[in-house]
Amino acid sequence: MDVFQDRIGTDQASRILQLALQSEGVQEATTSFLIHDLSRMQQRIESLQAVFPPNCLHALAIKANPLVAVLRHAAQAGAGLEAASIEEVHLALAADCRPERIVFDSPAKTVAEIESALELGVLLNANSLPELERIETCLSRMTSTSRIGIRVNPECGAGSIAETSVASKTSKFGVRLSEHRSQLIAAFEKYSWLTGLHVHVGSQGCSLKMLADAAVEIQTLREQIEAASQRKLQFIDLGGGLPTAYLGDDTPPSPADYMQTLRQRAPKLVDGSLDLVTEFGRSVQAGCGITFSKVEYLRPEQSMLITHVGADLLMRPAYMPANWKHAFALCDASGQLKEGAQSETTIAGPLCFSGDIIGRQVPLPAAQPGDWLVIRDTGAYTVGMWSRHCSRSIPSVLGYQATPSPNLVSLRQAETPQSMVQFWS
Amino acid sequence: MDVFQDRIGTDQASRILQLALQSEGVQEATTSFLIHDLSRMQQRIESLQAVFPPNCLHALAIKANPLVAVLRHAAQAGAGLEAASIEEVHLALAADCRPERIVFDSPAKTVAEIESALELGVLLNANSLPELERIETCLSRMTSTSRIGIRVNPECGAGSIAETSVASKTSKFGVRLSEHRSQLIAAFEKYSWLTGLHVHVGSQGCSLKMLADAAVEIQTLREQIEAASQRKLQFIDLGGGLPTAYLGDDTPPSPADYMQTLRQRAPKLVDGSLDLVTEFGRSVQAGCGITFSKVEYLRPEQSMLITHVGADLLMRPAYMPANWKHAFALCDASGQLKEGAQSETTIAGPLCFSGDIIGRQVPLPAAQPGDWLVIRDTGAYTVGMWSRHCSRSIPSVLGYQATPSPNLVSLRQAETPQSMVQFWS
Repeated sequence: MDVFQDRIGTDQASRILQLALQSEGVQEATTSFLIHDLSRMQQRIESLQAVFPPNCLHALAIKANPLVAVLRHAAQAGAGLEAASIEEVHLALAADCRPERIVFDSPAKTVAEIESALELGVLLNANSLPELERIETCLSRMTSTSRIGIRVNPECGAGSIAETSVASKTSKFGVRLSEHRSQLIAAFEKYSWLTGLHVHVGSQGCSLKMLADAAVEIQTLREQIEAASQRKLQFIDLGGGLPTAYLGDDTPPSPADYMQTLRQRAPKLVDGSLDLVTEFGRSVQAGCGITFSKVEYLRPEQSMLITHVGADLLMRPAYMPANWKHAFALCDASGQLKEGAQSETTIAGPLCFSGDIIGRQVPLPAAQPGDWLVIRDTGAYTVGMWSRHCSRSIPSVLGYQATPSPNLVSLRQAETPQSMVQFWS
Repeated sequence: MDVFQDRIGTDQASRILQLALQSEGVQEATTSFLIHDLSRMQQRIESLQAVFPPNCLHALAIKANPLVAVLRHAAQAGAGLEAASIEEVHLALAADCRPERIVFDSPAKTVAEIESALELGVLLNANSLPELERIETCLSRMTSTSRIGIRVNPECGAGSIAETSVASKTSKFGVRLSEHRSQLIAAFEKYSWLTGLHVHVGSQGCSLKMLADAAVEIQTLREQIEAASQRKLQFIDLGGGLPTAYLGDDTPPSPADYMQTLRQRAPKLVDGSLDLVTEFGRSVQAGCGITFSKVEYLRPEQSMLITHVGADLLMRPAYMPANWKHAFALCDASGQLKEGAQSETTIAGPLCFSGDIIGRQVPLPAAQPGDWLVIRDTGAYTVGMWSRHCSRSIPSVLGYQATPSPNLVSLRQAETPQSMVQFWS
């Protein structure tokens, strides 16, 4: 099975939990903690490198998982990093990622942020034509080693989830190709420092066909630009990623499937004639994460259990349950997987609002206080989107490494009431 | 006009912005900042004290606005504080609120948290009958000055917003009255330390009638408990609050309206025969806040502007736009209110996902980069729910005081890229 389709099974989750319960990372008072499987992440990054052409920079979306220790492991495994804010650029630098392997995408870059990015030499994708003018102004008073591209909206439609589809007509991202093709081509004629194109369709809820349609559009535009400007583009950033599996019957396409589709539909994009950049995030990271959270109370007549993470960790499953669902399992206090007859269970978080439900009608064996709820595929867009609602401490994050023998390292310590006081002071 | 119905007008917002632009709190690089009107908050707390009976503890919901400096000002004005987590208990203590004026409500209290609360002597509301057993066990090995109540779900129906309605049949909060009336009464006979009842219906989207229905239910239950246990209850915690106005045509009931309804419907609750606790949050704090955020880019053909706060500050308006809307205005770079012909504008945040839209079809005058977007009524459930999505720095929060002459104080400094590196390390 492809390493992108292989998920951490419940048996493995139970083994990792047992390992964690014996480690220093989990104390008596620990009510929740997250695991990030660093070995799996490394395998996935290596798989991307094997499947894609060699002149390809796989810039992982930092927003999917912004822990500096995770980013450092990713960079060491050969990934670049994609930053959605100037703060994320600094996270990438702190993770010892080289500037030329950092991609800075933001639809709201200030002049100060553009200057800072140009000084650092990170790759910069402009979101609009007016942003190109700002870059030109900055470059008129400084030199930079940055590679610079512009984001194009191919308008190839929205995926099934509006919130994560970025190539619809009303998107705030990129220059709309249907309206501004000639201005885009003119920009490449005008600005010699403009050497790349960026396109991004979305990830979750977007089909391989949509991603390929965007690639075809961008290849056509590339040819028009190269013909008009009489120079070669240096890079194309195929942003957006692949969907990821959250439930048992989801079967997302693999990077190999994606590559095959690109070879068929847009062969000149992947023939090595220019550098490629990718921006995978969710598909690499989600499946590397598991969350363990103690069952604190039962409400039997409502078939409900109350646990210690809710809409703070899992905002989208709480607010948009139709689109975002995780798979769950249950272990006992010693970490053994619970089996036996299952019944439909409501999983409520600890926050003081009614919508703080992270699982509905989830088939689970009978729970009791002290059991560990297992939440699968929590490696992306979970702790990285953490909401302060009710000011509960962010749980610790432990890194799991399969070799030389299974072991855990601390990636981020749990917050404490004292750190919360400091945070809000 | 009642101080709860009076909102910060756009003219006043403009004057505060001009004051802020001349202050140390706003720098050249500042792209957003929040204002909390401390004078207005104090007036509202004083108004509650004037309207409600004197033996009433107004415990403001910390989750509405958890800044320690805000909490300190509230406590100084005579408010107590309601904590939805043990971390919030520590925020209240850090704000110099006396323990007996802190109310600890959480549906997920661990034994360690219960012990800690009992040691501190804060008022504790159990969420369930099993939690009473935990408290009994704790009290068998320690003494405590805590007042202890139990939360009842009067099942008086859901309001118009499911996520903030906590008294429906499927709610995770409280003991359901329809099913457990006799067990509730028995608990008061069994546990002499159990001296209060807590009821909470919701706030936004809940009618005065629903709040009053709950009060009537709780008064009936009180009489049954007092008859059976042959002792008087010490307090009733009327949790939940009043809705607040976000748009121009909203007219929420005032605390005086609420009190009048209580006097009519449940007079024995408000006759001074026992202590009352309230848990207002949104209705006190929302209208005390304004957010100013620079317009960074325009996308004219989409009638869109891009600004520097999005779903990180305004999660609910971005994810649930049908239920949560703010009113907006626009000032120029010098802080002058912009007027003139308005057109429908889409207000996009800075985050890298398509759903990061905080205002749709908002009538605004023509914007240009460098203008200040004014977001009204952002004093509650905004910065306190901050989401880390894209790891952008939380803007500074400034306190506004109308007397002796209008002035600003720092309530929390802006985060920086360096503090973000520390946060994720």
